[in-house]
Amino acid sequence: MITEDLERLIALLAKLPGFGPRSATRATLSLIKQREKLMYPLFVALDHALRAIKTCSICGNFDTTDPCKLCQDSGRDQATLCIVEDVADLWALEKAAVFSGIYHILGGTLSALDGIGPDDLNIPRLVERVGNGQIKEVIIATNATVEGQSTAHYIADRLRKTNVSISGLALGVPVGGELNYLDEGTLSAALRSRRLIS
Amino acid sequence: MITEDLERLIALLAKLPGFGPRSATRATLSLIKQREKLMYPLFVALDHALRAIKTCSICGNFDTTDPCKLCQDSGRDQATLCIVEDVADLWALEKAAVFSGIYHILGGTLSALDGIGPDDLNIPRLVERVGNGQIKEVIIATNATVEGQSTAHYIADRLRKTNVSISGLALGVPVGGELNYLDEGTLSAALRSRRLIS
Repeated sequence: MITEDLERLIALLAKLPGFGPRSATRATLSLIKQREKLMYPLFVALDHALRAIKTCSICGNFDTTDPCKLCQDSGRDQATLCIVEDVADLWALEKAAVFSGIYHILGGTLSALDGIGPDDLNIPRLVERVGNGQIKEVIIATNATVEGQSTAHYIADRLRKTNVSISGLALGVPVGGELNYLDEGTLSAALRSRRLIS
Repeated sequence: MITEDLERLIALLAKLPGFGPRSATRATLSLIKQREKLMYPLFVALDHALRAIKTCSICGNFDTTDPCKLCQDSGRDQATLCIVEDVADLWALEKAAVFSGIYHILGGTLSALDGIGPDDLNIPRLVERVGNGQIKEVIIATNATVEGQSTAHYIADRLRKTNVSISGLALGVPVGGELNYLDEGTLSAALRSRRLIS
């Protein structure tokens, strides 16, 4: 009874993270009901993004230019490289405006289970970049998950022969965090890395 | 740092039901990463749907034809009309293959709070259809929510002068339902409408 056009739309939306068949059906109906205000603009936005968005051949960022604006920005500290899993992590760091160096995006984490090896990630290009001699410090800012941390260990191993300083983000209590809501791993890390006050 | 093209895409996806800014960001990144397998097909599917999908001028269904295939199907019982809130409800009933009459889609429920009156729903057209004399029975299949039931009452009132039989869906224990998970309202309705066994 659902026409083929709508079924295809539902099937595609259901592939988006956070969506399943039921929510994709709701979303599709919502699109049709807001044809002028939502469906057509979404179509146009996809068209624009499809034409405009490129993957930066240096760092793996998404931008309308290649190299991306961050890689082209000579005002950024070219000696400090921050490695992140995903473009979303770069966005988070840039939004926080806490880092002024350059980035490298892995595009995921190593996963023996899913068959994702170093060559499936942006790691060969990373090794090449770090080997060029311009980079003095590498900050591995992968997620503090098992996958993120084991990927960080692998990368640190691969870069050990180069003469750069390699660091990782501090583990500890998040600002605003309440101790009784934190897991044992976080508490243990925060205790181990305790700071002298005054 | 996020390019304008991607920001627009995120803002539009965030308007879909079930999506917020954070999940829309994840969805957008997932689209870019699967450009050929997801982003382009979604663009094409939206294009097709935008061109093809019409709202049936008789019942309010979405289809590639107007009148819709259900309204054109002379094999369906033209004397029994089922009133539903939404096209998704029609899809659910058709999927269950439990109704062979014709439909009328309201497009929502009455809501004084949201300023949705009878003329904002497909109710004038409903009164007209029922007044035509061909329909003998009306089944009001709005949701068993406060809004759905008050809309049902309003419709029953409006149709009272016509000589059609008006019914609503039975309220009771859903098949497979366990009593200790059901709310008081359902239990009370199921008890009041108890059936004689044997």
